[in-house]
Amino acid sequence: MERVGFVGLGRMGRPMAANLRRKQFALSVFDTVPSATEALEELGASRARSRADLARTSSVVLTMLPGPREVREVVLGPDGLLTHLHPGSLVIDSSTVDPATSDALASACAERGVGFVDAPVGRLASHAERGESLFMVGASDADFARAHPLLAAMGSTIHHCGPPGSGTRMKLVNNHLAVLLCTINAEALALSTRFGLDLERTLEVLHGTTATNGQLKVNWPQKVLAGDTSRGFAIDLAHKDLTLIVDAGNAERVPLPMAAAGRETLSSARARGFGGKDFSALLDAQCDLSALPPPRLKAGTPPG
Amino acid sequence: MERVGFVGLGRMGRPMAANLRRKQFALSVFDTVPSATEALEELGASRARSRADLARTSSVVLTMLPGPREVREVVLGPDGLLTHLHPGSLVIDSSTVDPATSDALASACAERGVGFVDAPVGRLASHAERGESLFMVGASDADFARAHPLLAAMGSTIHHCGPPGSGTRMKLVNNHLAVLLCTINAEALALSTRFGLDLERTLEVLHGTTATNGQLKVNWPQKVLAGDTSRGFAIDLAHKDLTLIVDAGNAERVPLPMAAAGRETLSSARARGFGGKDFSALLDAQCDLSALPPPRLKAGTPPG
Amino acid sequence: MERVGFVGLGRMGRPMAANLRRKQFALSVFDTVPSATEALEELGASRARSRADLARTSSVVLTMLPGPREVREVVLGPDGLLTHLHPGSLVIDSSTVDPATSDALASACAERGVGFVDAPVGRLASHAERGESLFMVGASDADFARAHPLLAAMGSTIHHCGPPGSGTRMKLVNNHLAVLLCTINAEALALSTRFGLDLERTLEVLHGTTATNGQLKVNWPQKVLAGDTSRGFAIDLAHKDLTLIVDAGNAERVPLPMAAAGRETLSSARARGFGGKDFSALLDAQCDLSALPPPRLKAGTPPG
Amino acid sequence: MERVGFVGLGRMGRPMAANLRRKQFALSVFDTVPSATEALEELGASRARSRADLARTSSVVLTMLPGPREVREVVLGPDGLLTHLHPGSLVIDSSTVDPATSDALASACAERGVGFVDAPVGRLASHAERGESLFMVGASDADFARAHPLLAAMGSTIHHCGPPGSGTRMKLVNNHLAVLLCTINAEALALSTRFGLDLERTLEVLHGTTATNGQLKVNWPQKVLAGDTSRGFAIDLAHKDLTLIVDAGNAERVPLPMAAAGRETLSSARARGFGGKDFSALLDAQCDLSALPPPRLKAGTPPG
Repeated sequence: MERVGFVGLGRMGRPMAANLRRKQFALSVFDTVPSATEALEELGASRARSRADLARTSSVVLTMLPGPREVREVVLGPDGLLTHLHPGSLVIDSSTVDPATSDALASACAERGVGFVDAPVGRLASHAERGESLFMVGASDADFARAHPLLAAMGSTIHHCGPPGSGTRMKLVNNHLAVLLCTINAEALALSTRFGLDLERTLEVLHGTTATNGQLKVNWPQKVLAGDTSRGFAIDLAHKDLTLIVDAGNAERVPLPMAAAGRETLSSARARGFGGKDFSALLDAQCDLSALPPPRLKAGTPPG
Repeated sequence: MERVGFVGLGRMGRPMAANLRRKQFALSVFDTVPSATEALEELGASRARSRADLARTSSVVLTMLPGPREVREVVLGPDGLLTHLHPGSLVIDSSTVDPATSDALASACAERGVGFVDAPVGRLASHAERGESLFMVGASDADFARAHPLLAAMGSTIHHCGPPGSGTRMKLVNNHLAVLLCTINAEALALSTRFGLDLERTLEVLHGTTATNGQLKVNWPQKVLAGDTSRGFAIDLAHKDLTLIVDAGNAERVPLPMAAAGRETLSSARARGFGGKDFSALLDAQCDLSALPPPRLKAGTPPG
Repeated sequence: MERVGFVGLGRMGRPMAANLRRKQFALSVFDTVPSATEALEELGASRARSRADLARTSSVVLTMLPGPREVREVVLGPDGLLTHLHPGSLVIDSSTVDPATSDALASACAERGVGFVDAPVGRLASHAERGESLFMVGASDADFARAHPLLAAMGSTIHHCGPPGSGTRMKLVNNHLAVLLCTINAEALALSTRFGLDLERTLEVLHGTTATNGQLKVNWPQKVLAGDTSRGFAIDLAHKDLTLIVDAGNAERVPLPMAAAGRETLSSARARGFGGKDFSALLDAQCDLSALPPPRLKAGTPPG
Repeated sequence: MERVGFVGLGRMGRPMAANLRRKQFALSVFDTVPSATEALEELGASRARSRADLARTSSVVLTMLPGPREVREVVLGPDGLLTHLHPGSLVIDSSTVDPATSDALASACAERGVGFVDAPVGRLASHAERGESLFMVGASDADFARAHPLLAAMGSTIHHCGPPGSGTRMKLVNNHLAVLLCTINAEALALSTRFGLDLERTLEVLHGTTATNGQLKVNWPQKVLAGDTSRGFAIDLAHKDLTLIVDAGNAERVPLPMAAAGRETLSSARARGFGGKDFSALLDAQCDLSALPPPRLKAGTPPG
């Protein structure tokens, strides 16, 4: 069985690593914040003294880090993981990064005989805790097969999207839509609020036409419309993803005026203090901008 | 039983009127294009010599016209319908117009003791033909009850959205989302195409997350992704609706940067010759702008 | 000498009419607000009892009205000016309207043998008071020659832009730039403020490169940067002009994403209560949105 | 006298270095493209064998590189300049980079007792050739005084904008305006072209109001309006600067919807093949998008 190393035990990484341990994977863990490993040690994981140590003793290393800069430093930097991994080992990066970073990791790994899989995560921290994450995976067929048991320990839906780099690209396409849905939903519901339309009736109409969408159907009734703006996926993170997306579109010469406008909508929400709230709270930010009271569902409205 | 007058027998009006006739409503019809009434006369409708004549002999008048200017002229203009309608009669306007126009109609009708219902239509001409339209209705309870049998003859889903003017407002909110979904879907799929991702796999992933949406799920697989850009709801009409929406948002001081950006995306598509195509062809327009081949589903892919 | 009728004695119309009177033109005036004519009567103008009366007794009629709707009603409406003007008379419209309105006026006038000149006004009310307005004129050569003495009584710069309708079109092009300059200046100075750059030094640098512009050079140092947001051209009016511009661009299939984004910037400023302030106060609105203190020049800074 | 090292002899760096040599500065040069140093060697500069060598033998090093990544690598990377510079020496970076990069350089230099000046360049390569560049300088007073003779050898206008990092920030503010002026000028002139307005007359009107601006006045008449789209500052470079600007605004929470929209306008121009043309050719790109013939001045029109 693989000896698994896990680097990056933040909000998403911790429950993911815990699920690996629960499925009996031999696990060593590392985080720059020492206390972050405690919960995992209680589950039987060992704490690596350094990233180098973790790399030398693992056959597969998973990384779950804040962004491209951290991933490049941890994997490719001086004294990075790649310096210490054995040929034949495998790197699985679940961070959300730009395509150029995944491509750089893939080719640096290939040069040293190390496999590479990009497997960014869909869904929320609460899914990760239940082992119900969704993975968008870029990998060769062989590396996909090798990574599959680990991914299956952490998630319930695993898409093999194509060769290395495809997982990252799919994630950006997916989040382009998921985040922009919130910005257009926010505009539509602010307008209906100003129009004096009843919220429940508005949702009923919209869900009966092609205007319906996953955010409005799944996330919104449970969160901001129910008065809960605190949990889930923060506007700050959605803004980070949109930055990766818009920059990728500009690098690739695909004009994305909607994404660019949406990013500034999120930037404006962040400037006005909404950055830490759930990204469905873009409705509250839009209402704040429009001098409107934010709409809420009546208590007892059935979700979705 | 009501004597029904119908003004405006275009692409949507004709099948709507035909369904009224099929349900045995006494029907007189009028259109500025004389040949437009022929099909209805064959079904037993009588052709009114003038709008004045139609108004004098009807207890309920339905209007289905291109836009606010035409509706104001036909109903409120010199020698318009309202000059000739009897007190106690009812006007049902199914055109897509701005809220100020619906409000002006409602108050002018009220002054003359005529009822008013705004009942714009959702869904496509093909639904209208099958009597499966969706109506978003603004009306008093009494007028709603009176209009209901006629609407039920033409449609299968009828939402009472609130007082007069609410149907028009709901329609704008609904089409804000339905049209902008196409602009963001177009950006996302152009990006996935440039990224080299497989179209079928991309759709499979997106439909498994909150990125899914009614346009991508219902309309797109049947239309532009299947190579059919000719039927349905034209970009020119979607652009007209977005113009009403953005202007209403500006009049109401609800900032709509996404809608404004989307309107220019449609304007650009129109400038480059895509105006007459189905609004799912915004993908082709986006690919044209991005110097990309537009993606198509492989033959035999199951829809949705 | 011409007998001049003047309709619309608001903030701009009153000083314009006063200058005609000062240059000894025989003048009758009309406004729907009766008190608006008082100052003119003191200067020797006669008050017309009605628009019809004014039209019947004038050889040239000037109109200075809020927008397209009012101009169409006053000139073309039932009992409008055109019903009562003598063949051979001349209409000069100085209102800011859309091209379709100017074209409709021009052709309705031509049908009745009445000349038509569109002559919207540049510069501010303070210029109008000093007889230093700028006119952008659309007219035949003959009508331009006939209108010239009147325009010269009210303004110091008169551009013959082409045939009827050209003045209106030039005005929209001019205000597209003048208004958008304020939106981009506001972004640039908000950014420099966040960056901690000194305001005086920033302006000195910008005026030494091609980044300089008429708004930043002429209007800004005297107004918002000097702490005065009260006078001049209001954001509400700039927003109205931008609405005409964006709608004209959409009607003409010229994509204008910058103008569309700028219009929403103004819409957001209006929603947050800045609509009545000078349009250079877009800087304050941008700083408000960015949670920044608005920058002001140190006392004693020389203008421009 | 200082021994000057110069790294980066591209389109801007070469004439800058040549002017240092002409003013008799002792100069060693380095570029990764070996042939790039030839012209300088002919002027009496010595070619350094490596960057390390150049650093060890220089008291002041100037860098003129494509962007943040290159600057970080050359100055801060393994075996970078900073490893080899003597305490008491000075780094002057004239590249256009993001504020975070300038700040990182400043603090890394300070740690090693090396002075740091950010001095990005305004104006064009043709100015650099004539020693007429403009420098926006961030530096301590002492470092500014030390750098001044070198900057004065290369440029005719030198602004001390504040402490280290201020030059970079000022450059971004300046280019925000300079580039966006082109995008709004392009929209305005495309609209005037569609409106059928005469180009010369349009410019005459605009230059007489606050709509005038440095780009329209200085660059445009000599370039794209005169039929020359080949020289000056390329759309690709303007796009790179706008990317730095929008990303800085997003990092700093200053919403920049105009800059974001403008960046996509440039992205669209690049996707359609205009990237290598002068940035005043945004007019041609806008006309291409609007299905319009691009306007040109009549031969013999006096500039500006």
